[in-house]
Amino acid sequence: MAMYEKKINTFLEGLSSDAPVPGGGGACGLVGATAAALGSMVLSLTTGKKKYAAVQPEIDELIQKMGRQRIKLLNGIDRDAEAFKPLSEAYGMPKETPEEIERRDAVMARALKEAAEAPLEMMEQLLETAKLLSRISEVGSILAISDAGVGLSMCRAATYGASLNVYINTKLMKDRALAESMNKKTKEILAEADKIIIPAYTAIESNLRGE
Amino acid sequence: MAMYEKKINTFLEGLSSDAPVPGGGGACGLVGATAAALGSMVLSLTTGKKKYAAVQPEIDELIQKMGRQRIKLLNGIDRDAEAFKPLSEAYGMPKETPEEIERRDAVMARALKEAAEAPLEMMEQLLETAKLLSRISEVGSILAISDAGVGLSMCRAATYGASLNVYINTKLMKDRALAESMNKKTKEILAEADKIIIPAYTAIESNLRGE
Repeated sequence: MAMYEKKINTFLEGLSSDAPVPGGGGACGLVGATAAALGSMVLSLTTGKKKYAAVQPEIDELIQKMGRQRIKLLNGIDRDAEAFKPLSEAYGMPKETPEEIERRDAVMARALKEAAEAPLEMMEQLLETAKLLSRISEVGSILAISDAGVGLSMCRAATYGASLNVYINTKLMKDRALAESMNKKTKEILAEADKIIIPAYTAIESNLRGE
Repeated sequence: MAMYEKKINTFLEGLSSDAPVPGGGGACGLVGATAAALGSMVLSLTTGKKKYAAVQPEIDELIQKMGRQRIKLLNGIDRDAEAFKPLSEAYGMPKETPEEIERRDAVMARALKEAAEAPLEMMEQLLETAKLLSRISEVGSILAISDAGVGLSMCRAATYGASLNVYINTKLMKDRALAESMNKKTKEILAEADKIIIPAYTAIESNLRGE
């Protein structure tokens, strides 16, 4: 059973426990999917309305794209759990003899790369979601503008959350060139996400506060 | 059935639709509860460990408190839906005759107050959650520090998200004194949350990036 088929309280009960998965990465998938769902809600409240007839073709396209983002992010919950397994196993390997240490190091290097790649891929999906949310906040129904803002805020939190899950793995990598390259990519995505999300969120907040 | 008993994908399908609830407020409850669950996860990975024996009494207390926050925030999903109902009904009231308008205005005023109070109460619960998460990031297992950071990030997003749900309702209030007083309280909680969350998150990020 996919994690997203669990009941909300059952999933959060598992998240609260000391079980290796779901973890912080899976939580980011859930929060990212929630952000995407909020974007879809704004579109559902916009589509077919006379006032927005001029942008109807774009709304149709955004509905398709945002629906796909939600599915990708929900699948990211399981993807993250899968990517964590090899690392969890590597930690359990013996490290007494030089041969054991060598073998463990090699397995650990591959496991760390995989565990860092999953949140980095999720960050790419969250960046795409942020772009769509930003556009939705411009063309979507003004009556649902706060929901677009909530979505943007959550998308940003999931992106930053996922970045910590990259760093915690790159920190332990012996291959420092690989670690630095993944950290650089992470920082680039964070900067790009902020450039999209912050102005869009600020515009919504100002509108709602009547400023 | 409480909303938190729904399957994750079913809940998000409903959130994506044009149905009046769940909405942005309910999404904030879900994300806040996810933040609380991450705090509980860190505590689950800390409790009973020799290295943290000195803080075990505080860990026990934090486990109780954080468990309660998760339940309060999960209940906030339904509380938000309940608080939105009267507003949804008020919008449907006739407004042709002066009597109808007067009656609708009176119902609308009460409905807006209720719809603004729910996210404001949720912000109080999120602030309490942020305080606990910040403390957990200090006393919890260093191995799970990224999860505390993800929780802090999500807690902040839910707090900002809930603030937009206060503003969208206070904006429409005719009683401007009430509106201003609720907006003031909202801004105070945001400022307090930032004061707690930003330094704690920054410390975690610096630690993980090895700075």
